Amino acid sequence: MRYPRPIARLIAELTKLPGIGPRSAERIVFHLLKAPEADAAALAAAVADLRTTIHHCSVCYNLAETDPCPICADGRRDARLVCVVERPADVVAVEKAGTYRGVYHVLAGRLSPLDGVGPEALRVRELVERVRKGGIAEVIIATGSDVEGEATAIYLAGLLKETPVRATRIAHGIPMGSSLDFSDEVTISRAIEGRTPV
Amino acid sequence: MRYPRPIARLIAELTKLPGIGPRSAERIVFHLLKAPEADAAALAAAVADLRTTIHHCSVCYNLAETDPCPICADGRRDARLVCVVERPADVVAVEKAGTYRGVYHVLAGRLSPLDGVGPEALRVRELVERVRKGGIAEVIIATGSDVEGEATAIYLAGLLKETPVRATRIAHGIPMGSSLDFSDEVTISRAIEGRTPV
Repeated sequence: MRYPRPIARLIAELTKLPGIGPRSAERIVFHLLKAPEADAAALAAAVADLRTTIHHCSVCYNLAETDPCPICADGRRDARLVCVVERPADVVAVEKAGTYRGVYHVLAGRLSPLDGVGPEALRVRELVERVRKGGIAEVIIATGSDVEGEATAIYLAGLLKETPVRATRIAHGIPMGSSLDFSDEVTISRAIEGRTPV
Repeated sequence: MRYPRPIARLIAELTKLPGIGPRSAERIVFHLLKAPEADAAALAAAVADLRTTIHHCSVCYNLAETDPCPICADGRRDARLVCVVERPADVVAVEKAGTYRGVYHVLAGRLSPLDGVGPEALRVRELVERVRKGGIAEVIIATGSDVEGEATAIYLAGLLKETPVRATRIAHGIPMGSSLDFSDEVTISRAIEGRTPV
């Protein structure tokens, strides 16, 4: 005898998720069995609704309930300014900052040759097409500052050089509210390199 | 702007689960958005079915699809021998060993005064009632060998002393396939203390 079928089945489905092994799956199942029944129902409904309600925006490839997404559809945003990010989570992060008034382009990842992720796996072709269509003045490359993010930025900058748009990279340096002795060597070098006149 | 509503909702539900923080919840959501749509549907169905199909056995309080559970309903099992365990997962562990032919009693936890878990939070009263009803010769206390499990075992042994059943504790000692120099001091002391004639 093993676990009753419904438990074994849920454990099997949960272990398919990233970061969840058999032990954590068991813990989650027993939690759901003890939690109020409404909690399990709410989780089931949220999972079921996800794929039917969420789609990619056909303009910027961000995830949204509508197409175009609320940002692309917002006439007050500056559609001539496009911020290229790796993932939808990055859009959320920039929007939380609350100061950016342009639009986005979501790559859906970053170049990672070791994992077999080349440009064709990302929305690179779509970005170039979008730029070629016209109406864009500047593309801000906001991929991550780790090795893959930097490599992706350099690759995109090369592609965009052949187009009339201005390509820029977000600034890297000492985070606000921090001090030099909390920063690593690479960040400090980058901050000095990228110094601006005051 | 934050995440689209269906994503925010699923993140909120996932972070209610044990061991899942906002970051892992985000990762799971984006995994589900990329995975085959059938995977998300299977997960939703497995969660939804869990609470409607799984119940506590009214005899041993194990989780099962039927009442009594398959073990209690199995006439070939020795109902005079009851193994007391903390959790349904322990039943699965003992059953996997494949040699135990008695039945179970699932406490649904262990005594943990620091967490406010007293005997009334466990199925202790139900165990005593079950023993009082008669038909049980021996109760094997198989709670864990950590501090709380040991305390629970001592508490149960005290209660059972007032009943006619024989109370026993599973053996603790060196695990099979291991050697002394891989074992900790407490286990070695316990193994020597619990030595049996050969």
